[in-house]
Amino acid sequence: MAKDMTLLWGSGSPPCWRIQIMLEEKQLQGYNQKLLSFEKKEHKSQEVLDINPRGQIPTFKCGNHILNESYAACFFLENQYKSQGNKLIPDSPDAQALMYQRMFEAVTLHQKMVEIVLYNYKVPEEERHDSAVQRNKEALTAELKLWEGYLNKTDCCLAGKEFTLADVLFFPLIAFLFHFGLSSESHPALAKYYNSLKDRTSIKATWPPTWQKIPELGTMKTI
Amino acid sequence: MAKDMTLLWGSGSPPCWRIQIMLEEKQLQGYNQKLLSFEKKEHKSQEVLDINPRGQIPTFKCGNHILNESYAACFFLENQYKSQGNKLIPDSPDAQALMYQRMFEAVTLHQKMVEIVLYNYKVPEEERHDSAVQRNKEALTAELKLWEGYLNKTDCCLAGKEFTLADVLFFPLIAFLFHFGLSSESHPALAKYYNSLKDRTSIKATWPPTWQKIPELGTMKTI
Repeated sequence: MAKDMTLLWGSGSPPCWRIQIMLEEKQLQGYNQKLLSFEKKEHKSQEVLDINPRGQIPTFKCGNHILNESYAACFFLENQYKSQGNKLIPDSPDAQALMYQRMFEAVTLHQKMVEIVLYNYKVPEEERHDSAVQRNKEALTAELKLWEGYLNKTDCCLAGKEFTLADVLFFPLIAFLFHFGLSSESHPALAKYYNSLKDRTSIKATWPPTWQKIPELGTMKTI
Repeated sequence: MAKDMTLLWGSGSPPCWRIQIMLEEKQLQGYNQKLLSFEKKEHKSQEVLDINPRGQIPTFKCGNHILNESYAACFFLENQYKSQGNKLIPDSPDAQALMYQRMFEAVTLHQKMVEIVLYNYKVPEEERHDSAVQRNKEALTAELKLWEGYLNKTDCCLAGKEFTLADVLFFPLIAFLFHFGLSSESHPALAKYYNSLKDRTSIKATWPPTWQKIPELGTMKTI
């Protein structure tokens, strides 16, 4: 099955990493893959555009199915391989409700991170304002405070004791934040979450190869 | 069951409307509901904040479960009421893959709409640039071109012949665009999609009460 799958990915991209973790969780090792370089703009290459008209990675084919959106790929793989590898959607309505709520709140966290990380890339020089940069940072600080509160109330994972689809989707964001210098002291619940999952087999096996030295940059130090 | 559910909503908000459509599709009429006014900032009221720390609507309680994110609410309701009302996740892997891919691409469409609609609300006057407004419009135009292409290839709904969860999540965005003046001539596939679904029972029953006169504003006329 995994032989029919192809993933084009970039190192350190949370959406790419989600699909890699998911494929490990579902015991789908052995898929075709190609590491592309953002610096060389390989995500805008014809090879990507043929599958993904947005010119973005991840670009993921699963047989004839195109699942470039990381959430789409994870949902599809869980549904198609329910009884293979780890079951990632819990049966209990309590855990299920919390899992869905948190995984979609993570979309907002991701957006707030992107607004900081890609500010200079997205906003032309003549439109940049220090006040906007400051406001974006404050928005991320407030967002992370919410997550600190959420994680303070859970056992280990986002939806309780079990590792679920919400963690597959959320963990790469948190790892990104700590990699780029987020303070563990200021975010103890996030740090505890990060440390409890970073050595999980599926996560360790897919750790971004460009992240060997940490923290490399300090983008998140001032959050 | 519906008696244990409470929805706080705002008229014309696509995320609110999604949950309303979903509740109709699953035959969960009779839930508690309260229409709040954005103008009066009722979404920042204590009543909302008690359930939704983000101070946003929809705010949705389903028994003891809090599902404020519209995608979360829809997934949860579909999973909990699988055999009640319309089945919204197809069995066929082809339709399922397409459904997941499109529903998560719709998150990007939504973001591009929000950047235009909420520009003056989100960006302080001294940081506004005509060039940014123009770029946001071009981004939405390009995004809609993609969707025109997608819808040209489908039968009636986003994932083929069947109405799925992807349509519950996507239709309110398209209705919003046409309500605010999007040109049918320039977007024939989107217009066909809109017209084929606007009289569906679940959609008609929940049509935003403030949208009786259309189009009211022309925000989308220049897209």
